[in-house]
Amino acid sequence: MDVSLTHITAADRAAGVGSPLAGFRVLELGHYVAAPFAARLLGDLGAEVIKVEPPGGDPVRQWGARHKGSAPWWSVHARNKRCVTLDLKKPGAREVVLDLVRSCDALVENYRPGQLARMGLTEDALRAARPDLIIARISGYGQDGPDRDKAAFGVIGEAIGGLRHLTNHAPGTMDLPPVRVGVSIGDSVAGIYAALGVVAALLRRERTKQGGEVDVALSESVFSLLEGALPEYGALGSVRQPTGGAIATAAPSNAYRSRDGIWVLIAANSDPLWRGLAGLMGRPELADDPRFAGNQARVANARTLDGLINDWTSTLDAAALETALQGGNIPHTRVFTVADIAADPQMRARGMVQEVEDAVLGPVLHPGVVPRVDGTPNAPRSTGPAVGAHNEAVLGEVLGYGAARIAALRAEGVL
Amino acid sequence: MDVSLTHITAADRAAGVGSPLAGFRVLELGHYVAAPFAARLLGDLGAEVIKVEPPGGDPVRQWGARHKGSAPWWSVHARNKRCVTLDLKKPGAREVVLDLVRSCDALVENYRPGQLARMGLTEDALRAARPDLIIARISGYGQDGPDRDKAAFGVIGEAIGGLRHLTNHAPGTMDLPPVRVGVSIGDSVAGIYAALGVVAALLRRERTKQGGEVDVALSESVFSLLEGALPEYGALGSVRQPTGGAIATAAPSNAYRSRDGIWVLIAANSDPLWRGLAGLMGRPELADDPRFAGNQARVANARTLDGLINDWTSTLDAAALETALQGGNIPHTRVFTVADIAADPQMRARGMVQEVEDAVLGPVLHPGVVPRVDGTPNAPRSTGPAVGAHNEAVLGEVLGYGAARIAALRAEGVL
Repeated sequence: MDVSLTHITAADRAAGVGSPLAGFRVLELGHYVAAPFAARLLGDLGAEVIKVEPPGGDPVRQWGARHKGSAPWWSVHARNKRCVTLDLKKPGAREVVLDLVRSCDALVENYRPGQLARMGLTEDALRAARPDLIIARISGYGQDGPDRDKAAFGVIGEAIGGLRHLTNHAPGTMDLPPVRVGVSIGDSVAGIYAALGVVAALLRRERTKQGGEVDVALSESVFSLLEGALPEYGALGSVRQPTGGAIATAAPSNAYRSRDGIWVLIAANSDPLWRGLAGLMGRPELADDPRFAGNQARVANARTLDGLINDWTSTLDAAALETALQGGNIPHTRVFTVADIAADPQMRARGMVQEVEDAVLGPVLHPGVVPRVDGTPNAPRSTGPAVGAHNEAVLGEVLGYGAARIAALRAEGVL
Repeated sequence: MDVSLTHITAADRAAGVGSPLAGFRVLELGHYVAAPFAARLLGDLGAEVIKVEPPGGDPVRQWGARHKGSAPWWSVHARNKRCVTLDLKKPGAREVVLDLVRSCDALVENYRPGQLARMGLTEDALRAARPDLIIARISGYGQDGPDRDKAAFGVIGEAIGGLRHLTNHAPGTMDLPPVRVGVSIGDSVAGIYAALGVVAALLRRERTKQGGEVDVALSESVFSLLEGALPEYGALGSVRQPTGGAIATAAPSNAYRSRDGIWVLIAANSDPLWRGLAGLMGRPELADDPRFAGNQARVANARTLDGLINDWTSTLDAAALETALQGGNIPHTRVFTVADIAADPQMRARGMVQEVEDAVLGPVLHPGVVPRVDGTPNAPRSTGPAVGAHNEAVLGEVLGYGAARIAALRAEGVL
């Protein structure tokens, strides 16, 4: 991997200064994926993030592959954060959280609805500490309604949001179950929405001085992606069904297999593109075949059409196939693995693949910041820290606690 | 569908007043999905949105199912927007756009990179009209880099972002191509990120008075969802592979088929949940079977385990299966279609399924606003309007053009 090494310098750390959220401080009472991802996005955009973990650490510290005793994912998941331990079940923790709240603009949490209140961190207590606080809560089903107390497993929320049903081969094509979108899509999309809600509420606060509450459900976040499915059902009673690798309304567009077994996306779903593809296939007469003349006919005969294209792609190795498609100006790409992404000139030119120095892992690849603001691909200011790495810094410098108080909290097992 | 009817009243329209983005005006130079979705989210949060379309209308007006000569999707896709026609290829359009820019806080566009500049709407011209404008640009690959000019098909960006590879059955399981996530996931996630970038830049503007530029790529938006895949590849060279309906790191968690052919998600991926499920299955001895004792063993034998669970689920209709799982407190759900969502008590209690009155369609179902702010499920202030419905209102009231000038623009074919 020939990626230029970015050392994280004091200058990089200070680079938050021009970032959109520079000067805002966010408290993360999060674990697993959704709230920590929301806080990471806010940190990526320049906010200062203080993450509170139980003394045993966020479970994600143990997730995925391990290297040098640490999870590479953690390096990214907790970048630009300071990590403080607090055992929220200990009575002494409450006052520390409220002191943190006093110094923060926003709080992001993803405990079960009502859980923080049961630990003494009620809405009233939080607002008493910081009247204009923005509170963002992420949960499986939302903060109210009959299902609010149900266990918030991401895969369940994704199925309720309608995405699992649609991510499958067409009915009757095969017997295997619908696939999971291969990432925590519900958690991540909920995290982006929560970040949006926090920033929108902060913007309102600038003008009105009022705080706000943001309530994001995994199931609803996924449901929001369903295009026209709900109004079409409401108007016509039609229930959208999955279409496998294809698109319901345009053809040809699918993944086709090369001779060497690589899936290559080809999107030739316009008349001129289809004519060009038929020519590349050495079958120019197909462009005038009534089965494939016009998008409507091609959609109606998509399976036959896909079969003919596959007959062609399976005669070529992926590299030759891509060269041919490139020569014909047909939109295409091989299905990228993460190895393809890491080597991609565009991703690298855009700073989306950055090599940074992690204290534990050494050099490690980090994804860049999305969205990019002001044309500069920002480097991470820091990588995911150790458990409790910033206990003294945050309690001492931010809250002004003396050494004796910090030692007492440690002795009580609060820290 | 027993959904309470919400008539859109003047009070509803005014309800934007307390919304987070009330008082901000956004200009949409968008088409298809990504930029219009970003603008819709900003409108959902209270911004005033002016959408500019060519006189022929945004192509999405023709997409999906049709009812009473209109696309139900459009009712949602363009809700809370005012629609103005402008033929940007006509010389007279430029001045109108710049006048609109003068009156707007943010611009959201998804033309090919450089396309607006080629039509005379350069960065300099836009900034001259409104120095503190926030400009958000959405594209397939980003505004720079070697691939910036490539055609921005969503399915291509999703494949480059790594999601298509991961959304598939495990290697060797079957011969069908990897499925498409059943919605325009790249466009939609890019749209959410663009909305986040706009609001973050507006927040900065409140304090610094400076404008900003937001650059969002479909491929990068999708790539941002890949959890630890990149750092794990960087540290270990491991390339993440798809796992079908299962999760790579926890079992059992999959979709299982009921006797009546409905897929039911079961997430019993902890020791107590698995013990409970084995009991429900009438096979309590399986909980102590060394093949399934502990998560690690269950993951290693997940295919066998899924087969045993399927043997059980296939003996019960979905309703009976759900009753059994509910009784055993095992996290589960049937795979929801949009019909299930529309009928779901939680979705309805949360205002995520609202019946609103559309001028063309009559009563139509709209999804609610995500993220929810301040605990109130906001009703749409208006539904997607006809082409050019607000030409007079916007050019007249917002820009102060007289009737003669508007008539001249119409005569020139600009409107």
